[in-house]
Amino acid sequence: MKIIFLGTAASLPTAERAPPCIAINFNGEYILFDCGEGCQRQMRNRVSYIKIKKIFLSHFHGDHYLGLLGLLQTMTLHKRTEPIEIYTPPGGIAFLKNYFASGYVGLSYDVKIKELGEETVEFQDYFVESFHVEHKVPCLGFLFRQKDKRGKFDKLKANTLGIFNRMFGELERLGSILIGGREVTLDDVTGETRKGKKIVYSSDTLPTRKLVEKASGADIFICDSTFVHEEDRNDTLHCTVAEACSMAREANVKRLLLTHISQRYSSDEVLVEAQKHFENVSVAEDFMEIEL
Amino acid sequence: MKIIFLGTAASLPTAERAPPCIAINFNGEYILFDCGEGCQRQMRNRVSYIKIKKIFLSHFHGDHYLGLLGLLQTMTLHKRTEPIEIYTPPGGIAFLKNYFASGYVGLSYDVKIKELGEETVEFQDYFVESFHVEHKVPCLGFLFRQKDKRGKFDKLKANTLGIFNRMFGELERLGSILIGGREVTLDDVTGETRKGKKIVYSSDTLPTRKLVEKASGADIFICDSTFVHEEDRNDTLHCTVAEACSMAREANVKRLLLTHISQRYSSDEVLVEAQKHFENVSVAEDFMEIEL
Repeated sequence: MKIIFLGTAASLPTAERAPPCIAINFNGEYILFDCGEGCQRQMRNRVSYIKIKKIFLSHFHGDHYLGLLGLLQTMTLHKRTEPIEIYTPPGGIAFLKNYFASGYVGLSYDVKIKELGEETVEFQDYFVESFHVEHKVPCLGFLFRQKDKRGKFDKLKANTLGIFNRMFGELERLGSILIGGREVTLDDVTGETRKGKKIVYSSDTLPTRKLVEKASGADIFICDSTFVHEEDRNDTLHCTVAEACSMAREANVKRLLLTHISQRYSSDEVLVEAQKHFENVSVAEDFMEIEL
Repeated sequence: MKIIFLGTAASLPTAERAPPCIAINFNGEYILFDCGEGCQRQMRNRVSYIKIKKIFLSHFHGDHYLGLLGLLQTMTLHKRTEPIEIYTPPGGIAFLKNYFASGYVGLSYDVKIKELGEETVEFQDYFVESFHVEHKVPCLGFLFRQKDKRGKFDKLKANTLGIFNRMFGELERLGSILIGGREVTLDDVTGETRKGKKIVYSSDTLPTRKLVEKASGADIFICDSTFVHEEDRNDTLHCTVAEACSMAREANVKRLLLTHISQRYSSDEVLVEAQKHFENVSVAEDFMEIEL
């Protein structure tokens, strides 16, 4: 599994940072979170347009969705036929209907749109949970959770219990097999369950209790950290670096990635501030990749 | 006067080329022709967002307009209050209405939209003429023409006719003055009229007779040259390099700039082909600037 940062800017893009877009590459597909303007260009030679299966939009401020339509049209130029799924906050179906009627849009595949409240969407190998965060407009944070996987086969233990190679598949299918009158279960011959990875993306928000709860124990917590200095915030609803770190600490996350960085600050300035408040913290940069 | 190429790609952006956008910097204002996705980022430190007064959209294919809304929103973040004028082909008002209702759009200034047919819009120091070109959807080419300026004052001649320093302003205001019973006109004391520069932008099109007529004698002719090889064109309605050159030759333009370059070709490949057909030709590159 890999996280690819394709845009890490706040509302104004800079030379180094494009508007928000994050891709997760998992089991051969890409899942996008937000689609800032220019994301299709950021993806060149990094993300296969055709392998993007789901797009989650956090909210309908321009910096978070204005790269969507160009991306979808480019998929058509790449002769996509497979449907794509788009998940949005409430109101998204009406917004996207207008967006798709803003010019001559002829897509070569179906677009399935679903508005999300606070809920969990289950896919084959993972879940995505949406939850409300605190921004000026309806805005969702997302929790991506890989499904737990059963432990590895313990061949020695299996053989001792009378399970040999050709029976592994059968045991996996049935869950248990009778061997000489004794029931052997899958659990008897596998190691500890392998816990799925958990990634939490705050999107744009002030600090919230819910975000801390959702981020609890996350392997990666990607958090809005627009401001270094509280006095720069004015009436915008975004976190400071210190607030992002404070939530990360409280949620006991393994690693914190700061994103949505205002054009006011250098990465160094953000990092110096962050390291005062949390140990395992990095400033997300465009094209940064994190293997999990 | 300066032309700034902010995007020179065809439908698919590349590492070097963003989607179409051209700025003309004239008398302290910027006039944009097309607004491809990412144009606001291309403008950073090159074009003042606040000084953009007019935007001309050639047509509503995504690569030519999907940078507009992000740009307009960024102007709000830069606290713009001055209205902006947008000119579009027929259907543009309805398209832009949908576009502006695709999310939470709150602009801090008025947007005036006007649909153009084949007509000339007069501004203080220049004209913009719109004309139909041949593309899959309604599409306009544009002719930008600086107004002619009167010739320079010929001080020697003026003095001989009895016109001295303090009378220059009066003569300019009135057009003529009586000196000892003789009428001296502005023409009597000024040199030859200085012809305004003429720039023609084809937008997306097959070769057309009208484009040749409009480009006649242009100082700069910016032409769609998507393809080097005719066989790559398929059913798209774009020019080949040879066709662009052929129109430039027939229209006797002073300089040809090739743009809307397909991602298939390198600039060198395009240039080598072009130089077979026209002498004063360049391949437009992103951030190229041309002083006139």
